[in-house]
Amino acid sequence: MSGCGVEHSLISVDQALKLIVEKTQALSVESIPLQQTLNFYLAENVYSPINLPLFSQSAVDGYAICAKDEIEAEAVFDLIGEIRAGQTTDLFLQQGQAMRIFTGAKIPVGTTTIARQEIVDLLDLNQIKVIEQLKQHADLRDVGEEIAIGQCLAEHGQQLSVGAIAALSMAGIQQVQVYQYPKIAVVITGDEVAETIEDFASGQIFDANAPLIRAWFAQRNQQVDIFHVADTVEAVKTLLHDLIKSYQLILTTGGISVGDYDFIRPVALDLGFEQIFWKIKQKPGKPMFFAELSKVDQTHCYLLGLPGNPAAVYVGMQIYTATLLNALQGQKQLPQWFQARLSHDLKADTRERFLRMSAHFEQENLTVKSLGKQQSHMLSNLMHANSLVRIPAHEQMQAGQIVQGIFI
Amino acid sequence: MSGCGVEHSLISVDQALKLIVEKTQALSVESIPLQQTLNFYLAENVYSPINLPLFSQSAVDGYAICAKDEIEAEAVFDLIGEIRAGQTTDLFLQQGQAMRIFTGAKIPVGTTTIARQEIVDLLDLNQIKVIEQLKQHADLRDVGEEIAIGQCLAEHGQQLSVGAIAALSMAGIQQVQVYQYPKIAVVITGDEVAETIEDFASGQIFDANAPLIRAWFAQRNQQVDIFHVADTVEAVKTLLHDLIKSYQLILTTGGISVGDYDFIRPVALDLGFEQIFWKIKQKPGKPMFFAELSKVDQTHCYLLGLPGNPAAVYVGMQIYTATLLNALQGQKQLPQWFQARLSHDLKADTRERFLRMSAHFEQENLTVKSLGKQQSHMLSNLMHANSLVRIPAHEQMQAGQIVQGIFI
Repeated sequence: MSGCGVEHSLISVDQALKLIVEKTQALSVESIPLQQTLNFYLAENVYSPINLPLFSQSAVDGYAICAKDEIEAEAVFDLIGEIRAGQTTDLFLQQGQAMRIFTGAKIPVGTTTIARQEIVDLLDLNQIKVIEQLKQHADLRDVGEEIAIGQCLAEHGQQLSVGAIAALSMAGIQQVQVYQYPKIAVVITGDEVAETIEDFASGQIFDANAPLIRAWFAQRNQQVDIFHVADTVEAVKTLLHDLIKSYQLILTTGGISVGDYDFIRPVALDLGFEQIFWKIKQKPGKPMFFAELSKVDQTHCYLLGLPGNPAAVYVGMQIYTATLLNALQGQKQLPQWFQARLSHDLKADTRERFLRMSAHFEQENLTVKSLGKQQSHMLSNLMHANSLVRIPAHEQMQAGQIVQGIFI
Repeated sequence: MSGCGVEHSLISVDQALKLIVEKTQALSVESIPLQQTLNFYLAENVYSPINLPLFSQSAVDGYAICAKDEIEAEAVFDLIGEIRAGQTTDLFLQQGQAMRIFTGAKIPVGTTTIARQEIVDLLDLNQIKVIEQLKQHADLRDVGEEIAIGQCLAEHGQQLSVGAIAALSMAGIQQVQVYQYPKIAVVITGDEVAETIEDFASGQIFDANAPLIRAWFAQRNQQVDIFHVADTVEAVKTLLHDLIKSYQLILTTGGISVGDYDFIRPVALDLGFEQIFWKIKQKPGKPMFFAELSKVDQTHCYLLGLPGNPAAVYVGMQIYTATLLNALQGQKQLPQWFQARLSHDLKADTRERFLRMSAHFEQENLTVKSLGKQQSHMLSNLMHANSLVRIPAHEQMQAGQIVQGIFI
């Protein structure tokens, strides 16, 4: 069997991503406190239970004034009290009266405008003078001017960013329906993996994959359980059989090629997983494997088998795991690729490549430049890369051509 | 005193950022396990203790072969054993011999090239035939070809991203010197702040600031301690006096303007803080306050006073707190602004503005578009914003002009 023939049976990057999006079923929905929802996706529309602002209020520190018309410079008003943010008052303003007021404080009944303190002279304890001409309704925030009661604040599918959490908090939202985040097990295969300095022996290598995956989830504020397994059918089978009971997603590294010790795929199929795809026409990360297990309780367990080379694991996490996590949370969306201008020529390759690159803006134009040491067992250029860029197969790329990528 | 006169005494955004970078002293350095260092900054150069690859190895599953010259198609070799990744062998290859080998396995002594399994036929248990012509040194990874022992892997000041942690792990690095992350207290001022539905009463508002700040730090994988304080000199003084003993950074929200109940600044000065700046010519967030306390033990406590309006807090965190946190960790760097093309005209304003915008790529050109509801007490447009964009003061901006911003 020639290498060339094998390549023809592979699916493309876009086909693989499409299969992840189409075949993955969303997890169930749960209601959790808003402050625990960072990066979760809403499973409901959220409507405002209040007006925002909640009441008409002063936008500045100054004086609430009652005046039928526009105020002329040097106009004098009687000062009848004070109102602070967070307070209410029984007093109300009549024509010619004023009250000291602070930013965010509820305006007293009768207020027609606010004079900011910079344009007011205090004549005595009971009188103020407004030194400039002042319009009606100056520096007033009206009840509901930002949001009205019942208005839709956030839509089903919205990701809860820092800003979104703040905005919902301001409207008094404390609990929201979100898509559950999967319980994730990570299985590191390979007898050659030395995890600690003590394990290190001739022929073994240090494991970059477990630290990489742990940090990748930490960056997203999530934890995963990591397992190491020996390269035997029995060990892999015992572990996977156990994990499918309590995890919704199993990520594996290594053991999915066609080597004599690549047991992940045969064991998964033997345990009842159905293959969704195996092998993508890409570099790094060709032997990627994706499968689904339907359980008797109608739930699913997904297995994404990443290759063992750390650069392939990195691409697998950034491109495929990210897409899969979104799909599991109801977001059937492909990666949001930026477009950038390539700063140099690139040789053609028979497979689509993900190259680690340095992206920067020249004026408003995003330009990307490839870094050295792109082989699948090499990672050191990630010290300097800030993007992962797609280079199409079979194309001799020229400087100035437009390519797609993601920031990393 | 007119509003105009006040504006003239304010410093610019760039001046404020420069003062933060110049005046902030880096915290001390500590040695911590690599896997706990996500987003920390290195306080040392890290040199590789090993070669990478650690030993010469096969890049594929196939056969290690000993042949003096290039191999002709149909050449036959004696199969004398097998070597897996993570194993070593006492066997060595002589002219005309081959060993089964797997990706990442250490090549046996005598290996001149690797035949990938796709181009090999197994004739019987003891003989293989290489069906294609094969060069010397094919699919071999040489010891040290990525990194040589003693080579600098990562430089002082490098931020430890997911990829950096993976790359250092692969070289066997387990512990690194990093700049300490500050212990941070957040003080939420304001009697008008209702934190729970039970506190909610007429004149009070829901607090967006504590959830915003908590989520902002969670996004960076960090925690902070949050305190609420009443609007009295005594309460503010008691709390700050306590916090300066054990925190290196105090962030406050509200209470830093010139209102009669704005106690943060006077209390801080009273406790011995020296003002670095107060008031920035920007919108939102004019009354921002930054001060430093030198303690008897030669350490410092910094106080960044953010305004109380949530939009100002958001800008304060993204622009100023982020810069300050970097400076505290030895990174004296200004924000890395992108450049983008404005998609519409904008009216001039007397102060520089940070507008919440939607940024997107048209081909490789980044374009930004302003969203509605930009006032400092409004946050709801953060549901749709993905960038904060600087609009210079006193300039009538035209569609197509280049502006600076950050992604949020």
